[in-house]
Amino acid sequence: MNKNFKKKLRDLASILDVTYEGDGEIEIFGYSGIQEGKKGTITFLADAKFEKYLKNTKASAVIIKKDFKAISADKPVLYSENPYYTFIKVVEIFDPVIHPEQGIHKTAVLEKDVKIGKNVSIGAHVFIGNMTEIEDDSVIYPSAYIGKNCKIGKKSIIYPNVSILDRTSIGNRVTIHSGTVIGSDGFGYINVSGVHKKIPQLGNVVIEDDVEIGSNVSLDRATLEETRICKGTKIDNLVQIAHNVKIGNNTLIISQVGIAGSSEIGSNVILAGQVGVVGHIKIGDYSMIGSQSGVGKSLPNNSRCSGSPAFNHRNWLKSITTFPKIPEMFKRIKNLEEKIAKLDMEK
Amino acid sequence: MNKNFKKKLRDLASILDVTYEGDGEIEIFGYSGIQEGKKGTITFLADAKFEKYLKNTKASAVIIKKDFKAISADKPVLYSENPYYTFIKVVEIFDPVIHPEQGIHKTAVLEKDVKIGKNVSIGAHVFIGNMTEIEDDSVIYPSAYIGKNCKIGKKSIIYPNVSILDRTSIGNRVTIHSGTVIGSDGFGYINVSGVHKKIPQLGNVVIEDDVEIGSNVSLDRATLEETRICKGTKIDNLVQIAHNVKIGNNTLIISQVGIAGSSEIGSNVILAGQVGVVGHIKIGDYSMIGSQSGVGKSLPNNSRCSGSPAFNHRNWLKSITTFPKIPEMFKRIKNLEEKIAKLDMEK
Amino acid sequence: MNKNFKKKLRDLASILDVTYEGDGEIEIFGYSGIQEGKKGTITFLADAKFEKYLKNTKASAVIIKKDFKAISADKPVLYSENPYYTFIKVVEIFDPVIHPEQGIHKTAVLEKDVKIGKNVSIGAHVFIGNMTEIEDDSVIYPSAYIGKNCKIGKKSIIYPNVSILDRTSIGNRVTIHSGTVIGSDGFGYINVSGVHKKIPQLGNVVIEDDVEIGSNVSLDRATLEETRICKGTKIDNLVQIAHNVKIGNNTLIISQVGIAGSSEIGSNVILAGQVGVVGHIKIGDYSMIGSQSGVGKSLPNNSRCSGSPAFNHRNWLKSITTFPKIPEMFKRIKNLEEKIAKLDMEK
Repeated sequence: MNKNFKKKLRDLASILDVTYEGDGEIEIFGYSGIQEGKKGTITFLADAKFEKYLKNTKASAVIIKKDFKAISADKPVLYSENPYYTFIKVVEIFDPVIHPEQGIHKTAVLEKDVKIGKNVSIGAHVFIGNMTEIEDDSVIYPSAYIGKNCKIGKKSIIYPNVSILDRTSIGNRVTIHSGTVIGSDGFGYINVSGVHKKIPQLGNVVIEDDVEIGSNVSLDRATLEETRICKGTKIDNLVQIAHNVKIGNNTLIISQVGIAGSSEIGSNVILAGQVGVVGHIKIGDYSMIGSQSGVGKSLPNNSRCSGSPAFNHRNWLKSITTFPKIPEMFKRIKNLEEKIAKLDMEK
Repeated sequence: MNKNFKKKLRDLASILDVTYEGDGEIEIFGYSGIQEGKKGTITFLADAKFEKYLKNTKASAVIIKKDFKAISADKPVLYSENPYYTFIKVVEIFDPVIHPEQGIHKTAVLEKDVKIGKNVSIGAHVFIGNMTEIEDDSVIYPSAYIGKNCKIGKKSIIYPNVSILDRTSIGNRVTIHSGTVIGSDGFGYINVSGVHKKIPQLGNVVIEDDVEIGSNVSLDRATLEETRICKGTKIDNLVQIAHNVKIGNNTLIISQVGIAGSSEIGSNVILAGQVGVVGHIKIGDYSMIGSQSGVGKSLPNNSRCSGSPAFNHRNWLKSITTFPKIPEMFKRIKNLEEKIAKLDMEK
Repeated sequence: MNKNFKKKLRDLASILDVTYEGDGEIEIFGYSGIQEGKKGTITFLADAKFEKYLKNTKASAVIIKKDFKAISADKPVLYSENPYYTFIKVVEIFDPVIHPEQGIHKTAVLEKDVKIGKNVSIGAHVFIGNMTEIEDDSVIYPSAYIGKNCKIGKKSIIYPNVSILDRTSIGNRVTIHSGTVIGSDGFGYINVSGVHKKIPQLGNVVIEDDVEIGSNVSLDRATLEETRICKGTKIDNLVQIAHNVKIGNNTLIISQVGIAGSSEIGSNVILAGQVGVVGHIKIGDYSMIGSQSGVGKSLPNNSRCSGSPAFNHRNWLKSITTFPKIPEMFKRIKNLEEKIAKLDMEK
């Protein structure tokens, strides 16, 4: 936040596409939390349990939910469907991430027939291979490697030390964090007389718009055809995605998940941390898989599974809650057997 | 595939070291699957269940198994012990992976006493330390780092952003994918009055011929002596191999496996995805460990184990199949106890 | 070891800050194990069970424990509180890790207002962003990336292909191994009508003195405020540390552990390999968590836990030992039920 960069509340409302009430002329230079609220900043109230802070916050304006209209705030307000989201947009206005300057650094190496769009930043020690295209407003940080015949769409950000291998296609507004590898060879061998012979990995990787991929992720190219991450999906750090995997839209893959070859993960799925998925199965849309689970067979839409191997989450909860009691169960069975033997003898 | 690059069937048979039957003069420019077969290409038949496609495939020639000789294909055939493997070699002829041009890029930095063999490619922004040798026909992709006193054999491929630390020895026909680190310090400390003091990691890493290592793998140098990966072993992405580990020949280590310090994995072993192996144990040759298992003690040759901690795979299967029933078992025990108490009272 | 670099035993004792007995004038050029002991070297005896080798070792001097004084060694000795640790220091004297030469390589790119201390080494193809400071005696290996407004303290070592993003603060004597990413964005999204909108990650990462971080680790910046690794903590390879995590002093995080957002790990904790820790919990000081465990709730100091989800380690051991017997338990319950039914009928 820079105290010299101010916006009138009226203008802020317009940029954020929300309505306001109160003095639209007040000047805002930043944001703050409702408790520690600071003069000249705007805060937000998303949860009724923080309402008590509303009266005394020192923030100069508050973003509140449309149906909170009843609440009388004694200061200017912005009305939003989703105050937290509107607040995030305020944060981005006053604290934008500042990427490197536009232009091609003199130490970058571009092979022939590379096409660079407008307002692109190509950092120091970057390598870009033959026939690759980087579209407008994208940022390639220093020491990234981009192979031949790749395409990177508009407003995408490739962080330092990322490796993007040949023929990868990346959409618009995609972010790829440091150390991630896109398009390494899939793990495919055929055993010929006890020796593993490599199966050529000739396919590629397609990453659609609005995907974000964390750091140190490994995402293999397909054997033939493609490995595909669909629009809006977000992948956390240290995830393994094998050859020919397809992941649908708006799915969340949490850190250290591994997905084996040719499996298909639906849309709006959540795979929690350290989940493993075997190859050649399909996990249906809107499914949620608990952390450290191992999914060994296909699952329909809306599945809730946990465990290794994974099964219905509620049933797993019952089993895992009983698990600490199995030594006691064992003793009680022994006990019963003795009693029955005794009863049997006495009869 | 490039339609202008053609080979006569007769010549293809000779290159592939197989026999042929039919018109050896026909020209082949590529390959295709048996169902979608394309004129001018060669396809293969490895599995009898696809035999029905043989008659109508549009491919101009077919690779078939030697003992399929009986089958009358109305087109030229190549006879192979292993049609799929022969087909893979056809793919490599018509669709070879094209690595960067030979030569040393002007932005590469080679320290003194670096020895470079014939037909080597050293990419942009590569660093190679003192006394390191790169042998004939090897390819070092851009932004790879190779330290001092290393040796890389013939026909090896080091992909972008790989880090190979000092004194690493790499054999012939080795492939190392992007982001992988070979020769980082092992995790060794001695606790002195509550403070962890580093134990110097002075050993190195030896990677034998025909090994392939995936992307973002961590392979630590030995404390003393060596960490060794033997001939023909294949390691998938995001695998952890600690100091002083030894892995035998032709073993497969699937993604996200972790092997702790000084453990020895035999030859022809398969460790499935996300397996953990504790330190200082030995897993015998031809063993198979199920995904997500935790191996806590040494295992003889030919072991089949699963679970965390791992035990006999068949027994584990029985236990894991019973696991969902333990809440019910608990109830049935209670029930039995009540009945027995009642019987006991009544007697 | 270099046979021409020798030290008198008297001088070695003084450097190591220990006392000696016997001929202080003998010259030592290196170190060896007690069994294979070599003339001209010094060895150590840390464990009484190796005492039998003491008499015949060919080493010219021995480091022994103070309370071993009774033992009559017929050769010069150094007396140490901790012979193994003193031996390690001997190793460091005779076999120091040799880092690259001081100076700034001509291919390194330093943006404006970068401050470099004395005796610093900045390797080839390094990038250092605006306003970043590298203090005295630190080593930045080739192809490392260090963003804007970072600080790296004295005697720290950043290995090749490390990425350190903007505003990261690193203390003195910190080591970061290759491929590691410090300060990538945390995994934070808000779901707006089924679409995941990114929550800006505006905080930073603070790494205190004497921390060592392995290779291919992902350590995310905080959403706001900081992700912090406290003094003396050691982190192994391929570990995931999410946004806003805090790890105390002298903690050991073994390979492939994942710690979710905002969790706090105490001091002197050990998290064994492949452990997962959910978000927003606290693991107390001096706790030990068994390998592959999943910690799902806060734990007090001195906890010993295993399992997924983790519970008391001893109880878990009992359960996991009983686990292979549950198919048999199931049969015995059935059996009991039949017997009871029979008894019931007969009564």
